[in-house]
Amino acid sequence: MDVLRYLRDRARLVEREIHRWVPEFEPVVLARAAGHLIGAGGKRLRPCLVITACEAVGGKTEDALETAAAIELLHTFTLIHDDIMDRDKFRRNVKTVHEVWGEPMAIIAGDALFARVFEAVAENARRLSLGKSRVIELFDTLSKASFEICRGQAMDMVFEEMDEVTEGEYMDMVAKKTGALTEASAKVGALLGGGTPRQVKALGAYGLLIGTAFQIQDDVLGVTGDRKKFGKPIGSDIREGKRTLVVLRALSSASKKDKRDILRALGRRNASEREIETAIHALGRTGAIDYVLQKARRLVAEAKAQLAPLSESNAKSMLLALADFVVEREF
Amino acid sequence: MDVLRYLRDRARLVEREIHRWVPEFEPVVLARAAGHLIGAGGKRLRPCLVITACEAVGGKTEDALETAAAIELLHTFTLIHDDIMDRDKFRRNVKTVHEVWGEPMAIIAGDALFARVFEAVAENARRLSLGKSRVIELFDTLSKASFEICRGQAMDMVFEEMDEVTEGEYMDMVAKKTGALTEASAKVGALLGGGTPRQVKALGAYGLLIGTAFQIQDDVLGVTGDRKKFGKPIGSDIREGKRTLVVLRALSSASKKDKRDILRALGRRNASEREIETAIHALGRTGAIDYVLQKARRLVAEAKAQLAPLSESNAKSMLLALADFVVEREF
Repeated sequence: MDVLRYLRDRARLVEREIHRWVPEFEPVVLARAAGHLIGAGGKRLRPCLVITACEAVGGKTEDALETAAAIELLHTFTLIHDDIMDRDKFRRNVKTVHEVWGEPMAIIAGDALFARVFEAVAENARRLSLGKSRVIELFDTLSKASFEICRGQAMDMVFEEMDEVTEGEYMDMVAKKTGALTEASAKVGALLGGGTPRQVKALGAYGLLIGTAFQIQDDVLGVTGDRKKFGKPIGSDIREGKRTLVVLRALSSASKKDKRDILRALGRRNASEREIETAIHALGRTGAIDYVLQKARRLVAEAKAQLAPLSESNAKSMLLALADFVVEREF
Repeated sequence: MDVLRYLRDRARLVEREIHRWVPEFEPVVLARAAGHLIGAGGKRLRPCLVITACEAVGGKTEDALETAAAIELLHTFTLIHDDIMDRDKFRRNVKTVHEVWGEPMAIIAGDALFARVFEAVAENARRLSLGKSRVIELFDTLSKASFEICRGQAMDMVFEEMDEVTEGEYMDMVAKKTGALTEASAKVGALLGGGTPRQVKALGAYGLLIGTAFQIQDDVLGVTGDRKKFGKPIGSDIREGKRTLVVLRALSSASKKDKRDILRALGRRNASEREIETAIHALGRTGAIDYVLQKARRLVAEAKAQLAPLSESNAKSMLLALADFVVEREF
C-alpha cells in the first residue's frame, strides 16, 4: 500500500476538521498567529495515527475526527513554543510564529491552541456513546502526555548545558518529548474506537516506539537531509548544541580530529556554513549515523510486533506501513 | 463574617492539594520553576471560590478539592506567561519565573502547569458519582475559559499599541482576561457540587462579575496601592502603557496639563520615579479613580444579586462577603 497516498487521503479528512478549530476570531492577530503553522501544512502524521488506531480496533473513521484535530493543535502548540526556545527561524518552509509576530504573541498563540485541545475532545466525547470512565481516560491521557512533553523539552534544554549525556538519558528524553504524543495519539484513537484495554495498551506501546524512532530519524535528517524537503535548515541542531543521538554516539567513538571538528561547531550559533559542513562530515566518518539509523529500525520492528493482538484489517496494514514510513521518510 | 479568616481557612485546605500537583520531578529545574510562584503564596481566591460554590449548592468541601487546585495551576500558568510578555520583574514579592530561570524555562514551566490542570480534574471526576455529560461539561468549561483568557491577554497587548480604546473594548478584554477564570471557577464548583443548571448559570454570572470587578480594582491598586501589600511595583502598568480603565477614563476627561503629565509616562519603560508619580497625581485629579471604583462597586452589587436563587447558607454568606472583599482589598 502507498503510505504517502494513504496519509494524503487521511490528511484531507482531518484537514477541514483541524481548520474548524482555528477559525478567524478577535483579536485577529492572535487568530493569524495561532493558525500560521497549521496553514503551512505538515504531514498530519499524528491525527492520521488517531484515526487509523480508531479504525484498527473496529471504530469508524469519523468517530475520532475532533480528537484527531485536537492532537494536531496540541502538536502545533509544542512546535510554536519549542521554536521560541530554540530560536529557530524556519519550520515547514515558512517563518516561525515568533519570527513573524514576536515572542509575546507567539507564546499566547501556542497557549490558545493548547486551550482548545480539550474543548475539541469534549465535543468528540459528547456525540459518542462512551462510558464515563472512558471519557475521563481520554482527557487524562492527553493531560498526562502534555506534561510528559514539557518534561522532555526541559530535559532537551538541560542537556544542551551538560558535558556528557548518556544514550539512556537521551532515549528517556525522546520518549517524553516526541514519544508521549504519538503514544497518546494511538491510545485515544483506540479509546474512541471502543478498543479493549489490551488493544489500547498495545496501540499505546506501538505509538511510543514509532514516536521515538521518528525523533531519531529527525535528528539524522537534521544533519543529512535536504533542506527543501525537510523544511528547516540543515545543521541547526548542531548550532544549537542539541545532544542528539548522532552527536552523542559520534563523540564517544570519534577520532581526535573528528571530535575536534564536531566540537568546533557544536553549540556555536554563529558557526560558518563551512564549519557546519566539516562537522557533518566528521559525524558521518564516525559511523554514528549508521548506528543511529539501525537503532531506529529496531524500534520500528518492535513497534510492529506490538500490533500482533490486532486482527487483520486495512487499518492494521496502514499502521505497519506507517511504522516503516517513519524511518524511510526524507521529510 | 471575617472574609480574610475564611479565606485563610479555605486556603489552608486547598494549599496541600495544590502542592500535591507540583511535586519534585525530573528535570528538577522545571519542577522548581513551575512551583516558584505557587510557593510564593497568593490569596488562593479562585480555588476558594471553587470550593465555596460547591458548598453553596449543597456539595461537600472535599468534593471539589482537586479541581480547586487545578484552577490555581491554570491561574499560575497565566501569571507566568503574562509576566514574560509584560516583562514584569516581581510578583507576590518575589522575582518572576523568567527573571530567575530565563524565558525558555519560564515558557515550559507555564505549559507544564497548564498540562496538569486536566489531569487534576480527571482525578476529581473519577471519584465522584457525576453523570457523563456533567463530566464533559467540566472539561469543556475549563478549556473554553482557558481560550478566553488567551484572547483577553492578546487584546490587552493589542490595546497597548492603539491610540484609542473605548470603555466597552476595555470591559470586553477584562471579562475575558480575568472574568473568564472566576466565572469558570464558580461554575465548576457548582457542577461538582451537584448544582441545578440554573444554579450553575447563576454562579457563573456571579463569578464573571466579581472577576471583572477584581481586575478593575487591580488596575486601581496598580496606581494607588502600597507596593509591599500589593506585591508588585506601583506604576508598572503605566510604564508598560497598559490601557487600564483608570487611564482610559482619565485621558478622556483630563485637563491639557494632566493629559500631558499622563502621556509623558505612559508606555515609557524608562520613565523616572518622579514622572510616574506626577502621572499618578494627574490621574487622581481627573476623578478617574473615583469613577472606576464606583463602577467596580456596581459590578459587585450585580454579582451579589445573581446569588438570589441560592438558598441561605454559610457558603452563600461567604460568596456575598467575597464579592465585597474584591473591591475592598488592598492586596
